[in-house]
Amino acid sequence: MIARVFVLIVVSITSALANTNNNEVSESLKISGNNHRNHFVRGLGPHVRQTWGEPWPEPQRRTLYGENFMVVRMALFRFKVTNFTCDMIDLALKRYYDILLGAGAESQKLKMRLVVNQAERVTTGYRGHLDVLEVNLLSSCEYLPHDNMDESYKLKIDTPTRPNRGVLVANSNWGILRGLETFSQLVHHSRNHSAFRVKSTFVQDFPRFSFRSILLDTSRHFLSKEILLKNLDLMAMNKMNAFHWHLVDDQSFPFESKLYPELSGKGAYNPYTHVYSRQDVAEIIEYARLRGIRVIPEFDTPGHTQSWGPAVPDLLTKCYQNSTIAGRQPVPDGTFGPIDPTQEKNYRFLKTFLGEVVDTFPDKYLHLGGDEVDFSCWKSNPDIGAFMRNENMTRYESLEEYYMQKLVEIVASFPEKKVSIVWQEVIDNGVEIEKDSVLVNVWKGWHYQEELGNVTRMGYRALLYSCWYLDMISWNNDWPGYYACDPQNFTGSAGQKELVVGGGAALWTEFVDETNALSRLWPRASAPAERLWSSADVKDVEKAAPRLEEHRCRLLRRGYSVQPVNGPGFCEQV
Amino acid sequence: MIARVFVLIVVSITSALANTNNNEVSESLKISGNNHRNHFVRGLGPHVRQTWGEPWPEPQRRTLYGENFMVVRMALFRFKVTNFTCDMIDLALKRYYDILLGAGAESQKLKMRLVVNQAERVTTGYRGHLDVLEVNLLSSCEYLPHDNMDESYKLKIDTPTRPNRGVLVANSNWGILRGLETFSQLVHHSRNHSAFRVKSTFVQDFPRFSFRSILLDTSRHFLSKEILLKNLDLMAMNKMNAFHWHLVDDQSFPFESKLYPELSGKGAYNPYTHVYSRQDVAEIIEYARLRGIRVIPEFDTPGHTQSWGPAVPDLLTKCYQNSTIAGRQPVPDGTFGPIDPTQEKNYRFLKTFLGEVVDTFPDKYLHLGGDEVDFSCWKSNPDIGAFMRNENMTRYESLEEYYMQKLVEIVASFPEKKVSIVWQEVIDNGVEIEKDSVLVNVWKGWHYQEELGNVTRMGYRALLYSCWYLDMISWNNDWPGYYACDPQNFTGSAGQKELVVGGGAALWTEFVDETNALSRLWPRASAPAERLWSSADVKDVEKAAPRLEEHRCRLLRRGYSVQPVNGPGFCEQV
Repeated sequence: MIARVFVLIVVSITSALANTNNNEVSESLKISGNNHRNHFVRGLGPHVRQTWGEPWPEPQRRTLYGENFMVVRMALFRFKVTNFTCDMIDLALKRYYDILLGAGAESQKLKMRLVVNQAERVTTGYRGHLDVLEVNLLSSCEYLPHDNMDESYKLKIDTPTRPNRGVLVANSNWGILRGLETFSQLVHHSRNHSAFRVKSTFVQDFPRFSFRSILLDTSRHFLSKEILLKNLDLMAMNKMNAFHWHLVDDQSFPFESKLYPELSGKGAYNPYTHVYSRQDVAEIIEYARLRGIRVIPEFDTPGHTQSWGPAVPDLLTKCYQNSTIAGRQPVPDGTFGPIDPTQEKNYRFLKTFLGEVVDTFPDKYLHLGGDEVDFSCWKSNPDIGAFMRNENMTRYESLEEYYMQKLVEIVASFPEKKVSIVWQEVIDNGVEIEKDSVLVNVWKGWHYQEELGNVTRMGYRALLYSCWYLDMISWNNDWPGYYACDPQNFTGSAGQKELVVGGGAALWTEFVDETNALSRLWPRASAPAERLWSSADVKDVEKAAPRLEEHRCRLLRRGYSVQPVNGPGFCEQV
Repeated sequence: MIARVFVLIVVSITSALANTNNNEVSESLKISGNNHRNHFVRGLGPHVRQTWGEPWPEPQRRTLYGENFMVVRMALFRFKVTNFTCDMIDLALKRYYDILLGAGAESQKLKMRLVVNQAERVTTGYRGHLDVLEVNLLSSCEYLPHDNMDESYKLKIDTPTRPNRGVLVANSNWGILRGLETFSQLVHHSRNHSAFRVKSTFVQDFPRFSFRSILLDTSRHFLSKEILLKNLDLMAMNKMNAFHWHLVDDQSFPFESKLYPELSGKGAYNPYTHVYSRQDVAEIIEYARLRGIRVIPEFDTPGHTQSWGPAVPDLLTKCYQNSTIAGRQPVPDGTFGPIDPTQEKNYRFLKTFLGEVVDTFPDKYLHLGGDEVDFSCWKSNPDIGAFMRNENMTRYESLEEYYMQKLVEIVASFPEKKVSIVWQEVIDNGVEIEKDSVLVNVWKGWHYQEELGNVTRMGYRALLYSCWYLDMISWNNDWPGYYACDPQNFTGSAGQKELVVGGGAALWTEFVDETNALSRLWPRASAPAERLWSSADVKDVEKAAPRLEEHRCRLLRRGYSVQPVNGPGFCEQV
């Protein structure tokens, strides 16, 4: 009987997308480089026509049933919790109800409700009203997102086994969050804007990689709490799950420490206005938690620490001049280098300070940096030389190793915190660290495939950022390049591939601040978001472009100033 | 006596700037290209430290008097009109009073007034209060800005001849507008934010070039009226005086014509939401006029006209297939090329339509486009071939010439409109046009110096855009490259150099819309703004950088989301 109700033409995603107007996606989508001064493309109308009601990132499995669709009457629509729930779920339901309604939709909804009955019922595929989405969480909620959280879910809209019904089911609250996002994306306006529709769809979904991050650098330019929260919204809308917060660096130290208030007092651009208070940090972590996003702070040492210097006497290495001139006495030149690894008291400071960090950030990962350690200052300093001779060290890499090992030990000694993330140089320089307690963050743009091969061959887990340095910009649409990069596309065993646990997009802020951070990051970061979530075979740029065009318009409609992504075009603002 | 009151150390601009902390401007300011993945710069604090109370663009002559300064008490400050005035001036005074006060300053001003008396009076160079700026306009107002408007002014703040006074004097209302902008930039917060200060200064100023424009393309992406108005504000704050409005193009036709409503009805992205009504256009023109900015519309033909096609039958050339295959009958392939120049009725349409344009836009310049005419469609069309044989034309350039000459004649026939602007190809292709009735818009990035030499040798006036295609972006600070470009730096006689009447910055909108237009354009466009206004010898990037840093912070403080320009740093938000 059910089989009779449905026209059981199960359309594959491929052919469903072929129905959209993606023949408008030209070869020029693949253009890269910056040497064009001529116009991007000619022709009347948008370069890429958007899809209607297609999600981003693409779920692992998505089945449509012919042209079947249901109409969502917003005046009547509600979520119905049918099993476990918790505050996080309740808040998410409220949030997604608001998103579904959209800005200014209050006045529309009654009108739509009236129009629906006439306009939609005569349309091919009309299958009635979807007034309820059943939310079926199969277990009690977990409190904190973590590295092994289960983000899988199933979403059934008017499927053969659930005709005329809408059901979201997940093992965990994280899956419910991801599924609500997908549902909110499937609901779309009909082309004449008379109704909200949702296509009859079966979605079975889970992430390909467990770690999908955005790095924001709040040191080169300060980013306000409000911008960070908006970015968390956008991450959730792209199913990313880790905020890699590059909190401090050479230029400024905006993190307000309880134990060492002078760090921001002397190291922030402005200690009153350009800092994150402890309350700000707590609010950001909670906001992220409610969206299933981990907050992983980075306190990059021993390099990139100039802003730490003014507050902590003798922390940084004194650089000397005349060190290599025979017969001249080396003298400090007034500049400073990386943290001085020869001073025991520096490790005591780091243990105390990182202890506070660990107390502040509940995630069990902590990023320790370790990139771009400049040896020249160490080389100039006679005390460092004496220390190394005393320890029988001949290479400065050994000194770096000495430092990093002690640092990782400090982190491992905290009961709450067990995993360190380090930038690739730490491993490149031969620093030996216990495999279980570290992830290697591959970032260099050259030879990243070789690097992934190397670090996984050594048995380290790896994160790939190299392809997604989104502060690097070019004139034309660069997302196809980001999209093409696959973290498992390197020479190595299946076991090695499994050691790549994900990756992320980085927005360094040399030329970015509040004025352009979000528009520059999104929707370009949506490309790695799909790469890291969806199946490896979802990689056709021409098929993805119309869906990304819709996604961009969706984010814009939700109130985020995200920039054009596919060349000339426009969004219907509803 | 007066000589005794002043310490008559007249400091040149060069040494005055040397007092600012511009030794922080490193060689990296000059980096260009996009091949860096490493971090831009190390070191604690901002990469470039801003000046305090220095204007942008740099006036032709600016003299400081030692460390002398006056304090502006905002609670008492007023402009005093001492001679001619008009609505435009009165509105400007109100506008600049608001700008001087700044956002949220109402509550500050009384506080500042109290503090001033203690804190400032003990400071070296304190010269008392400046409570009045005398505004001395020497003639009655002109109504419309135009190509020969006098933008010169003098500004005297506590000068030897006007001790303790502030005087702005100009021959024309345009000069008063420019001088008010300079005054508003000279007034700055003291470093402890306890008072508004203005340094004792003599400014004698006028623009180097009479034409200083911003091109915005509203066809690839629609830009709302609000964004266009904000851009006019920013232009005025950078002393630019021409809005080159690239209104329509292949992709969309957002200009609502009274006579041909179908042009936007069928050619706009959305004929209801993505159009400029006649009232919008009038409002934009008036807003610009009040800021001394001309609005020069571009209706680019015969190419770049795909969006005109749906509304005007037979306007566009039908393209044919099989034209070059022996024994096959050429047939239309369903696509269209440039305007069909062989049809007399097309010229009648253009005369009527451009007549409406001329009635709508009061400026006596009209941009006719003429760039990138693709001959392939003309070549494919047998009727075009027949017409050319009939007219004894052998080159398609002759057909283009035939079209452009008729178009320029149409424009010249309008009593209100005498000057056409055309893109360089029109001249490159050998189209002969009467010299007085045309300006040549040089835009191609390669060989632009040669091109400037060529067109001025032929006796044409020229505008340079080539160096300032600001939609072309790169990761690092690209403004030094824009700054280095000089429109008179080409091989040619003094007479030829004088034919270069200015230039402009272009923001094509393939990848730009409301979300990123202003932040991408500004303050990068401030570099050409200074190049086109200031003396040719104001060209030292390291001296300009701290002043540009202040300018960027000033624009931000005034409420415009303009992006970072010099690498890591921050703005004190007051």
